[in-house]
Amino acid sequence: MPSDGPDQPGFVDLGFARVDTDRLERTGDPEGVYGAGKTTEQIVAILTHLHRSHPDRAVLATRVTDPAAVVAGLGDLPAVPDLTANAVVVGPVPTPVGLVGIVAAGTSDGPVAAEAELTVAVHGAGTTRITDVGVAGLHRVMATREQLDGCDCIVVVAGMEGALPSVVGGLTGTPVVAVPTSVGYGASFGGVAALLGMLNSCAPGVVVVNIDNGYGAGVHAARVARRRFPS
Amino acid sequence: MPSDGPDQPGFVDLGFARVDTDRLERTGDPEGVYGAGKTTEQIVAILTHLHRSHPDRAVLATRVTDPAAVVAGLGDLPAVPDLTANAVVVGPVPTPVGLVGIVAAGTSDGPVAAEAELTVAVHGAGTTRITDVGVAGLHRVMATREQLDGCDCIVVVAGMEGALPSVVGGLTGTPVVAVPTSVGYGASFGGVAALLGMLNSCAPGVVVVNIDNGYGAGVHAARVARRRFPS
Amino acid sequence: MPSDGPDQPGFVDLGFARVDTDRLERTGDPEGVYGAGKTTEQIVAILTHLHRSHPDRAVLATRVTDPAAVVAGLGDLPAVPDLTANAVVVGPVPTPVGLVGIVAAGTSDGPVAAEAELTVAVHGAGTTRITDVGVAGLHRVMATREQLDGCDCIVVVAGMEGALPSVVGGLTGTPVVAVPTSVGYGASFGGVAALLGMLNSCAPGVVVVNIDNGYGAGVHAARVARRRFPS
Amino acid sequence: MPSDGPDQPGFVDLGFARVDTDRLERTGDPEGVYGAGKTTEQIVAILTHLHRSHPDRAVLATRVTDPAAVVAGLGDLPAVPDLTANAVVVGPVPTPVGLVGIVAAGTSDGPVAAEAELTVAVHGAGTTRITDVGVAGLHRVMATREQLDGCDCIVVVAGMEGALPSVVGGLTGTPVVAVPTSVGYGASFGGVAALLGMLNSCAPGVVVVNIDNGYGAGVHAARVARRRFPS
Amino acid sequence: MPSDGPDQPGFVDLGFARVDTDRLERTGDPEGVYGAGKTTEQIVAILTHLHRSHPDRAVLATRVTDPAAVVAGLGDLPAVPDLTANAVVVGPVPTPVGLVGIVAAGTSDGPVAAEAELTVAVHGAGTTRITDVGVAGLHRVMATREQLDGCDCIVVVAGMEGALPSVVGGLTGTPVVAVPTSVGYGASFGGVAALLGMLNSCAPGVVVVNIDNGYGAGVHAARVARRRFPS
Amino acid sequence: MPSDGPDQPGFVDLGFARVDTDRLERTGDPEGVYGAGKTTEQIVAILTHLHRSHPDRAVLATRVTDPAAVVAGLGDLPAVPDLTANAVVVGPVPTPVGLVGIVAAGTSDGPVAAEAELTVAVHGAGTTRITDVGVAGLHRVMATREQLDGCDCIVVVAGMEGALPSVVGGLTGTPVVAVPTSVGYGASFGGVAALLGMLNSCAPGVVVVNIDNGYGAGVHAARVARRRFPS
Amino acid sequence: MPSDGPDQPGFVDLGFARVDTDRLERTGDPEGVYGAGKTTEQIVAILTHLHRSHPDRAVLATRVTDPAAVVAGLGDLPAVPDLTANAVVVGPVPTPVGLVGIVAAGTSDGPVAAEAELTVAVHGAGTTRITDVGVAGLHRVMATREQLDGCDCIVVVAGMEGALPSVVGGLTGTPVVAVPTSVGYGASFGGVAALLGMLNSCAPGVVVVNIDNGYGAGVHAARVARRRFPS
Amino acid sequence: MPSDGPDQPGFVDLGFARVDTDRLERTGDPEGVYGAGKTTEQIVAILTHLHRSHPDRAVLATRVTDPAAVVAGLGDLPAVPDLTANAVVVGPVPTPVGLVGIVAAGTSDGPVAAEAELTVAVHGAGTTRITDVGVAGLHRVMATREQLDGCDCIVVVAGMEGALPSVVGGLTGTPVVAVPTSVGYGASFGGVAALLGMLNSCAPGVVVVNIDNGYGAGVHAARVARRRFPS
Repeated sequence: MPSDGPDQPGFVDLGFARVDTDRLERTGDPEGVYGAGKTTEQIVAILTHLHRSHPDRAVLATRVTDPAAVVAGLGDLPAVPDLTANAVVVGPVPTPVGLVGIVAAGTSDGPVAAEAELTVAVHGAGTTRITDVGVAGLHRVMATREQLDGCDCIVVVAGMEGALPSVVGGLTGTPVVAVPTSVGYGASFGGVAALLGMLNSCAPGVVVVNIDNGYGAGVHAARVARRRFPS
Repeated sequence: MPSDGPDQPGFVDLGFARVDTDRLERTGDPEGVYGAGKTTEQIVAILTHLHRSHPDRAVLATRVTDPAAVVAGLGDLPAVPDLTANAVVVGPVPTPVGLVGIVAAGTSDGPVAAEAELTVAVHGAGTTRITDVGVAGLHRVMATREQLDGCDCIVVVAGMEGALPSVVGGLTGTPVVAVPTSVGYGASFGGVAALLGMLNSCAPGVVVVNIDNGYGAGVHAARVARRRFPS
Repeated sequence: MPSDGPDQPGFVDLGFARVDTDRLERTGDPEGVYGAGKTTEQIVAILTHLHRSHPDRAVLATRVTDPAAVVAGLGDLPAVPDLTANAVVVGPVPTPVGLVGIVAAGTSDGPVAAEAELTVAVHGAGTTRITDVGVAGLHRVMATREQLDGCDCIVVVAGMEGALPSVVGGLTGTPVVAVPTSVGYGASFGGVAALLGMLNSCAPGVVVVNIDNGYGAGVHAARVARRRFPS
Repeated sequence: MPSDGPDQPGFVDLGFARVDTDRLERTGDPEGVYGAGKTTEQIVAILTHLHRSHPDRAVLATRVTDPAAVVAGLGDLPAVPDLTANAVVVGPVPTPVGLVGIVAAGTSDGPVAAEAELTVAVHGAGTTRITDVGVAGLHRVMATREQLDGCDCIVVVAGMEGALPSVVGGLTGTPVVAVPTSVGYGASFGGVAALLGMLNSCAPGVVVVNIDNGYGAGVHAARVARRRFPS
Repeated sequence: MPSDGPDQPGFVDLGFARVDTDRLERTGDPEGVYGAGKTTEQIVAILTHLHRSHPDRAVLATRVTDPAAVVAGLGDLPAVPDLTANAVVVGPVPTPVGLVGIVAAGTSDGPVAAEAELTVAVHGAGTTRITDVGVAGLHRVMATREQLDGCDCIVVVAGMEGALPSVVGGLTGTPVVAVPTSVGYGASFGGVAALLGMLNSCAPGVVVVNIDNGYGAGVHAARVARRRFPS
Repeated sequence: MPSDGPDQPGFVDLGFARVDTDRLERTGDPEGVYGAGKTTEQIVAILTHLHRSHPDRAVLATRVTDPAAVVAGLGDLPAVPDLTANAVVVGPVPTPVGLVGIVAAGTSDGPVAAEAELTVAVHGAGTTRITDVGVAGLHRVMATREQLDGCDCIVVVAGMEGALPSVVGGLTGTPVVAVPTSVGYGASFGGVAALLGMLNSCAPGVVVVNIDNGYGAGVHAARVARRRFPS
Repeated sequence: MPSDGPDQPGFVDLGFARVDTDRLERTGDPEGVYGAGKTTEQIVAILTHLHRSHPDRAVLATRVTDPAAVVAGLGDLPAVPDLTANAVVVGPVPTPVGLVGIVAAGTSDGPVAAEAELTVAVHGAGTTRITDVGVAGLHRVMATREQLDGCDCIVVVAGMEGALPSVVGGLTGTPVVAVPTSVGYGASFGGVAALLGMLNSCAPGVVVVNIDNGYGAGVHAARVARRRFPS
Repeated sequence: MPSDGPDQPGFVDLGFARVDTDRLERTGDPEGVYGAGKTTEQIVAILTHLHRSHPDRAVLATRVTDPAAVVAGLGDLPAVPDLTANAVVVGPVPTPVGLVGIVAAGTSDGPVAAEAELTVAVHGAGTTRITDVGVAGLHRVMATREQLDGCDCIVVVAGMEGALPSVVGGLTGTPVVAVPTSVGYGASFGGVAALLGMLNSCAPGVVVVNIDNGYGAGVHAARVARRRFPS
């Protein structure tokens, strides 16, 4: 399957990881690193191999417990930490193509929105941010309608009852990706209420990712936005 | 506890049921009959005893499989069936005091809204009905703002993601009672998604009843509406 | 929608938050601040803007990790911490109108009852407190029947099996709002058992809020109590 | 383990069933037949072998779809159908020892209460029945306190929020066995709400059986009642 | 909000429904009709009003119990039933722009895939269908890689463990929308296993809709495909 | 209801607690104190009032975080801590009547078994302990059959799959109370697997209490054991 | 991946199905047909193609609603229906290698055990059947110990609490595959209780398949048994 | 049942534990020690007795919080800690018979894979390890096909959506044991998503153990592998 022949199996075997160096060729986006459950040393080693495999295209590590330690471990490599999104980027971010709106229902949804925003940028699309437009005060989101219509894709981040994607999806025809967050208490069950709300949205075309998964929403949204202007 | 002394224990023992004839005295509202799982004969017997206990105040039976058969079984008693709400009313409905808004998100929420509407009437308050104002087309609900502000209590009936109570609760200060319905499919889980959405509403003061429980919402709303004009 | 014209969009954009300054006008109650997941600095900033927007009406922040730090951050503003309810109030509390009963099943339900009690006060109604009247010793709650009948609305706070609202709802016709708490162990599942018990209450007219949500119950109850004496 | 030696293995192998003929010897009670999922022919065959194994002691089959067909299939054997409990008894019921109270919260809990009542009788204890004493009208159950104190064990059958065992368990020191029923709707989840309520009862010493399991409650209660008067 | 002025509120009130005639203007797609829980008469009335509102653009009704009866009820209107998708289309389908791949894991996923396929067509994009390429025989899906790369968006329909979107999402950079189906048994819980599998996909950028929701996936996919060739 | 007249309402109101001093009279057992969520000061105050109310009968506090601190706070009162069961007993334990077997499936179930054992003793019955007789080595439990037959009631404590009560319930006719424990991992879900296993036991007459609820099992078992030898 | 070259892609595309004709080569066992959700015509077509692909090796269709209709549709092909297992076998069953024990806890588990037994045979191993050896009468299963030790693999089928695999797994070192069944009621939740019990088995080495999945257990067991005597 | 006669009951009673010294004789494998919830002293005592009972065959303790402390407590006994698997082995590991493949989907699944690997070795089979072959880059797992075919049993460890066992089970006829891990976030629910995915695998013959249960998978796999070469 990989294009690099018998001697080049399309991955590098580090013992604890098989780095998928073929993914950029195969899908147009390099492999990302999911940092949870990995040591700083493991993250540094994987990022180093991925960066060497494609030095001209940024690689992203998310859910990094200590971004500064990872950056330090990378030494001279061009690494930048993001302390809000708990992430590290190594290498040059692409010139943005298309525009993704990042809409957050409340202040507490900030870190997940930041992960989505950074992911969109690393995957090659531009972003615009709209914060704290929960449905209990509709005039706040309705004031942004023109901004929403100007996007190629919209990521809507919300916890509690997760109603904002339904409202946004009813205001505009731009494709909407909903991200439930674990913000809430009691019967929010760590984001399950928001997840179910979004899956049952009465607005057509709303799609959903896992709870707190700003990364997944960002990859999808960037791919949609980039498509509008095919290279 | 009942006020009627040793000879009058406050209930009538029918063998299969102990009819709570004291409830009207105790709470201001007569006992209602939950018809599910009861035979037509049992419903007729209980309604008959309750009606005799307070002939001047209507008694309500809900979840009645065959309202016409119950009305027939009641013979000369002043009974009226409601085929949308699957209910039977026996005796005179009180003069309405106060006003309750019954708001339904979609056409399919109709039977539950009808149960709520009838319950409010039997418990002594007036009603006004607003149908199919789901959040995917906000202008529909926003066109009703004056109507909402004129109510003493609002019952909001919605299935799927159950977002409508949050929107209504953000538009008005009138007390809101949310009723999740079992309308939806897949991960709506028979109304659980709507129930969780409503319990996690970001609009303050939204309270919730069981799935499809138009009756419970109606009793609460009628009591709130009647309070405004204490007798 | 907001009444303040094109130059006054009805909110203040702080970057991390869009403060809904129009809400008092729209609903009769100012926006509250849900402190969980927000920094002390963010809470202070939002409270400051809300207080400036309506200096004559108290604003409430709940779920505040460090109420004293928030009060300190507010400097000269008239702020009062509540260490049992983990809350902060800024500005003058309204003269109470109507009466809300706060009934707690057990000693451990205290903090949630305190949040409900403070919320009622900030939203303009009076309160009376009844504590530790669990159903395993019914004479305790039955000794309070006159007190219950004298209220305009009753908030019943209970964990474990959550049976107290059914008992209270059968004793009086006053509207009842049930608050399940996360008190219990094993198959109480953090309050789910109590929540389900309350949703399935056989007493008519019992409505329910989210687990531990004393705030939501308090807003609803205050609105109901205030309605009895319309201004 | 069975007492009947190498030639008598303690069971009869019918091919589709190994009838535990040793159980009466081992536990003092014969094996019962759980009819669900078994054909009439299989039930008849198992009952026949059990009856032959102990003709002087009744054997019970529960959850029988067609009790009349089973009785017909048993021919001359002394079989009696119970159409409320959906059960069949073959052979003489023991002289009752001790007294078990069967308390049902509502009319709809009747079939489960009937299964419990019949099971107690077949397992050798006497019964007394109290019906429709739900907690929304407490005076009904409080009128039965002397009756409750006179029992050796009490089976409490309830659906919806399942609060009755807590109330009964707080009124008397007689051991209480709670049976949740699948009566209710919406978030009762087929009896789960009642089951959780009973497991979390604040009344000490309340024990619980599976949803609708009148049989299991009856066996336990009969054994407790018989113990008081050991043979 | 609707563009049609004070006399044209943007909806038609049929009593049982407020038809959102403004939606085509607002979002570029007309309102669809969710047929479950509606009578044939109600579906016919809503379709008639929507068709009149935009006769040049097809309107879609899904989850229709009896498509032929709806078509008959529509009389002369240009209506076409789809018996596999249980749907009815009224009016001319747009010329397709862009291409959406419809990939189904198994034969039993057919009706959901058909609903997605029809929805894409009605919303203006072209489709290509790939059936029965479950992951237990990977060569089947790998034989379609070129086809997948040629699409603008891919809808992947799968039941059971729902692994196919992860495999497709690892083979191509085309945006993937996953649809869990209720195909399976036991611990598939009516599609929950597939839903959870898709939400937790290790392939980046996979987004998910509700169980069996081919309609929602189709709307999103069509919008993404159409964007590539903006009008 | 309490027997002590108008001046003696049957409880002592401490502000944060209404101590049920009537319970000993009403049920034969004094109120116990559930320590979780209460401060040391609150536990000390409640124990003091209960002890004064019945100095000749021991009172029990369970789920006490710091038993030594509670004993210290009680000063001269005759208090004894139990560090395995996390409990405190104040006052003289009754002379044991009847015998309760405490059977634990594994070593890790020790603390819950200790709570059950202490509860039985405080409620007036004798105990015998059998530990680590899990079903993966049946000869261990079968070696105890005579011991089991000699008991008046058996408490079986088990985690993981919770199969031991079924095995014990098949070996003896003594009434069995099953206590699921939170021992296990993964899909044991904090004791839910054991709880479900016990509720579905194929051995007749097995009753169940909440997860880790040694106290509830102990009260029931002691009452059953005491009944055999009525005073 | 398939061994049959570019012209032979390893599957046959029937439009509604891609029949995996390469599977026998790849895994040693032919593809089976899961009949649920497929029409008789579809099942007949798939079986026909699979049989032609390997006429000397039997192919199995399970979950067939109408086995006789499928056999009729297959015309002259050597097809045999199994009415207990709801299955159809086409072609010659292999000579059995090794021995698999099929152990069922109760009579009602029969159909699932039959599916497992037939699957083992079609996949080339011998079987021996042991029925109705539930743990409430341990002497029944203990009488089979020698039989169990003589097997190469044991499939244990049980509903309700699912305790039998733990007991069998503690009696023998033969590998055990547990199959939970949906037999039971109330809190058995359609087999979930048995599934959880088996996943949490305290007997080492017990592995589990989906609820009612006799087929999956049979394939695994046959492969294990055949391995002992490698060809 | 134990073979060692009346004086040798087949277990050693340590008070807090009944060590099953008969298990090696009965099943061919000694009892293992589940360390969670046991003190270091208890683990040391049990390991000591088991080692004495069979000094020539290694005994394994898993889920040990402090392996070094256990080794220290064992003094002169031949104990070896495993810090990745959190385990301790005492005594000589058997000569390996047969080969088990240990396949892990991601780097984060390492500890569970290590527990499986060590368990296989202690139970007498050889192992080969393959790491980080998740399905988002299929070429990685497909590069290992020959290695997989050479195994006698394969343990597949995966978190998130748990799709890897389906892919492996479709590539080879070697028996597969799937181990879901708690790796993932949001709607992975601590491994439930992976568990459900594996239970619903469309690849025939995949069997499953509890979440993170490398030990259970290892015992089963070793027994299967050893069977191929019976002693």
